[in-house]
Amino acid sequence: MNYHYEENEKKISVAVIRRLPRYFRYLRGLIEQGITRVSSAELARMMEVTASQIRQDLNCFGGFGQQGYGYNVEHLYDQICELLGVKDNYRAVIIGAGNLGRAIVRSPMFERRGVTPVAMFDISEDIVGNTVGNIPVYHMKDLETFCRVHKVDIGILVLPKDQAEGALTVLEKAGVRGIWNFTSAELNTENEETLVENVHLGDSLMTLCYRLRSNGVFGDTENSKTED
Amino acid sequence: MNYHYEENEKKISVAVIRRLPRYFRYLRGLIEQGITRVSSAELARMMEVTASQIRQDLNCFGGFGQQGYGYNVEHLYDQICELLGVKDNYRAVIIGAGNLGRAIVRSPMFERRGVTPVAMFDISEDIVGNTVGNIPVYHMKDLETFCRVHKVDIGILVLPKDQAEGALTVLEKAGVRGIWNFTSAELNTENEETLVENVHLGDSLMTLCYRLRSNGVFGDTENSKTED
Repeated sequence: MNYHYEENEKKISVAVIRRLPRYFRYLRGLIEQGITRVSSAELARMMEVTASQIRQDLNCFGGFGQQGYGYNVEHLYDQICELLGVKDNYRAVIIGAGNLGRAIVRSPMFERRGVTPVAMFDISEDIVGNTVGNIPVYHMKDLETFCRVHKVDIGILVLPKDQAEGALTVLEKAGVRGIWNFTSAELNTENEETLVENVHLGDSLMTLCYRLRSNGVFGDTENSKTED
Repeated sequence: MNYHYEENEKKISVAVIRRLPRYFRYLRGLIEQGITRVSSAELARMMEVTASQIRQDLNCFGGFGQQGYGYNVEHLYDQICELLGVKDNYRAVIIGAGNLGRAIVRSPMFERRGVTPVAMFDISEDIVGNTVGNIPVYHMKDLETFCRVHKVDIGILVLPKDQAEGALTVLEKAGVRGIWNFTSAELNTENEETLVENVHLGDSLMTLCYRLRSNGVFGDTENSKTED
């Protein structure tokens, strides 16, 4: 299929949206290095895509570079943060306090992206009542009330696959709209408000296996050897 | 940019390759349900893409449907497994026996994709010498010899970010070609043989935040509400 966007439309295509977090990472890297401006050619070299792709993508949301100056890194970063809702301060709960839940809750990615983990939930008596990092672990039976009272935006599913559907139902009842699903369960919902984002780690592993098999040869330059 | 492929070329574009794991998952689901054939229209409805996209993708590697019959599910699944190297039986080591390493090593995704985790490595005296699941945890100082002797194909980096580069160097010396990087380190390597596949969980989180912000409205139908 052809990914495309209409320059005069307000809607930005999913393809562009899915590339924005990558711009976010690279621009943050530049800011950390104290770099204040960057040309589309330099950004293209770093990200191993074409300069024309960069200009197209950034033009989509009004990130216009200036001839002979390039892009103002901080301004571009702010625009992307704004667009991605980094400053919206979403609240998240983590359902499952097993190894994956514990690994995730400590990740710096939340703070960087304006998401605050507020609680974890589990059913194991050994874990409930404790904290992981500074995050309290509550019993699953308190999930619905907690989410309602604390106006939780995101439920992160890191529990056994066969319990994912049940947790989803509770989260939806409590008005949680965003579901970040790490289980391999295919979640079906009647609720049109619910947004499910699936993490398929296995897909990434398979891509690596294919690249090993084909000796790294791809028919395309998109997605370079060192960057996904 | 336009993703494209040439029907008469042997090379398959990265874009198609990156979609194959998704076909793999859906086809496995059909097999588990005992379904033996599927039309491009049915597959399109399930996967929420167009039937023409499906026909294009599958034609790329000779997965031709038959008029009035559709695709033979098992045959198509086998072809995708073959293409993705599912039967190549790659050996993987997991570098880091913290929460994320422990979560990953137990995942059924490895077996399903023909990858065998053979060992974990860490530096903590509390963990080295133990097993996680059935997988032994060795000391990092044994990493190079182990990988060389056991002809390890894949190194999975789930260690602190600032130690990623060092682990990469050792893995490369030992002839490990595939690197599955869960750290946020940008890995740079001089070695053209090395293939790095990065897992950027934060990108997926940001996409979810964007969708929450924009009320789930996308300018495109690729990547549906329930499937990434």
